[in-house]
Amino acid sequence: MTRFMRLLVRASAPAAAAWLLSAGFASAEALASWHDTNSRRAIESFVTTVTTPGADFVPPAERIAVFDNDGTLWTEQPIYTEFAFSLARAAEMAKADPQLLAKPGFKAAASGDPKQIAALSEKDLLKVVVATHANVTTEEFAQAAKTWLAQARHPRFHRAYDTAVYQPMLELISYLREHDFNVFIVSGGDADFMRTFAERTYGVPPDQVIGSSSTTQFDQRNGRWVLVRQPQMSIDDKAAKPSNIGLHIGARPIFAAGNSDGDLQMLQYTTSGPGRRMGLIVHHDDAQREYAYDRASKIGTLDKALDEAARSGWTVVSMKGDWKTVFPAAVATPRAP
Amino acid sequence: MTRFMRLLVRASAPAAAAWLLSAGFASAEALASWHDTNSRRAIESFVTTVTTPGADFVPPAERIAVFDNDGTLWTEQPIYTEFAFSLARAAEMAKADPQLLAKPGFKAAASGDPKQIAALSEKDLLKVVVATHANVTTEEFAQAAKTWLAQARHPRFHRAYDTAVYQPMLELISYLREHDFNVFIVSGGDADFMRTFAERTYGVPPDQVIGSSSTTQFDQRNGRWVLVRQPQMSIDDKAAKPSNIGLHIGARPIFAAGNSDGDLQMLQYTTSGPGRRMGLIVHHDDAQREYAYDRASKIGTLDKALDEAARSGWTVVSMKGDWKTVFPAAVATPRAP
Repeated sequence: MTRFMRLLVRASAPAAAAWLLSAGFASAEALASWHDTNSRRAIESFVTTVTTPGADFVPPAERIAVFDNDGTLWTEQPIYTEFAFSLARAAEMAKADPQLLAKPGFKAAASGDPKQIAALSEKDLLKVVVATHANVTTEEFAQAAKTWLAQARHPRFHRAYDTAVYQPMLELISYLREHDFNVFIVSGGDADFMRTFAERTYGVPPDQVIGSSSTTQFDQRNGRWVLVRQPQMSIDDKAAKPSNIGLHIGARPIFAAGNSDGDLQMLQYTTSGPGRRMGLIVHHDDAQREYAYDRASKIGTLDKALDEAARSGWTVVSMKGDWKTVFPAAVATPRAP
Repeated sequence: MTRFMRLLVRASAPAAAAWLLSAGFASAEALASWHDTNSRRAIESFVTTVTTPGADFVPPAERIAVFDNDGTLWTEQPIYTEFAFSLARAAEMAKADPQLLAKPGFKAAASGDPKQIAALSEKDLLKVVVATHANVTTEEFAQAAKTWLAQARHPRFHRAYDTAVYQPMLELISYLREHDFNVFIVSGGDADFMRTFAERTYGVPPDQVIGSSSTTQFDQRNGRWVLVRQPQMSIDDKAAKPSNIGLHIGARPIFAAGNSDGDLQMLQYTTSGPGRRMGLIVHHDDAQREYAYDRASKIGTLDKALDEAARSGWTVVSMKGDWKTVFPAAVATPRAP
């Protein structure tokens, strides 16, 4: 029985399982949306090697795969999805408390004007993220994220953000699971934000989602003990990624996928262990079907990691050349109740 | 197929599986080492209720159980096992660098005299823990812990520390897994220390072990990227336990087991969620077969949590009255290679 099958048994929600199947998981042909190019062959060669008895065999318990999320599993342009959520939440907060409009991030958010939003500095944007993620219980925050995700639509693709995911990467996750890999998300996105859709969308349960996080305060609200998010955030990016892998997983992965310099250290850590390893980088070179950006982009900068990929033999996936399709055909996912 | 069976499939190491079976996991009679008392009935009633369709049914994905380790799953007297490891490591370090003997913790450790060690303040002991857990890679640290665990013996029970575990608690973990619970360790012990035996001993994989942790530095050693433990530790105790549950699991457990005031907040957090919940406290009242201590003990103080147990209806397990046996009959576990 494969890890994927066990996951389905565990998931218990028939709707989720049905959607996973329709979205390409456990498809008749593994990696069906991948052209038969070097990238696909490198993936298949790696998986065959580590799962076949021999010098490079890796026991199932050590088949750990880590995936970045923004730009690796779902679209991160024109702004990170979580920034879109934060701006929507900031606009709502400013309605209730107009004094917040004195802050540039809240002012731009309330205007709803893409130009004002695009003009914000990363510092001001991060301030909005911190302010909109604090002073709520973890359970209230998750509910706010679910509510937003259910109604928000990507400005270009006009589909729910959690359906602006890459079909070939869903198939890659499925393919790894069919070979008893244990799949984790290691992303700069807020862990509690990602946990609201990661199980439904990627089959990754909450405890296998590693991300940025807020300090929490154990406190009582209405007589119940809760965790209240504080305005201190720890960002899961660059060298923090391998450190968080150590903290949360406690073992060195054998497969890592990313798309930006924020993933460089995670790929270095993964691929410098002994035995056969695989590093994979999604290169956004498809302006027509998605976006084209790398070294000069403010979002998802891919510069040092692209150089290192050439030196270290990581697989650089061309969205344009390696993928038959980008997004799943289904445009609707089952929404959270 | 139960979670336990899936775990066995995953474990892949026949020796580990055989030992788990011999140690009482998946025994013909669940909870065989528990007398038929209120404690056992409370456990069975809880599990039956949350797994039977009805108002209190909990879907498998939400059946999260958290267990403290020291004093809950294994013996914590006469000193925490990790302190014993730290003292042994300190004695070794002092051999290599006699200047360390200027520090009271290292001096007591090098003396090997139980009286000098017992006289150390908790502060001096913690200094030894921090110093012996820092400036090594996570992989070197794990190897040191494995090596020590393989040869060290408990001073009173003359068995390896990872066999000084409570047979009834192993059966409880197994019973929960047979009912599709997902079991996590949430303990004050160092996560990387516990990860060296938790899978073999409890069937809990490294990524489901939550504990105290050191900050790590991503660095190169001999051309390989590694995580180097720093002399800053975050202690997973009291209110940090629910915060770490939020950080690592991202969901509120429905079952929590502990034995001391360090577990109070974890039990409060677990049992103040909606629906049926269970809090369980192991009360050390068996001086003959193990130890008897509670309110006045320096190690594993059980005072406030004992009062709260009475108020909140948590199950207080009497080692003396509820358990037929304390330790597994097998005195040898398979050692790490």
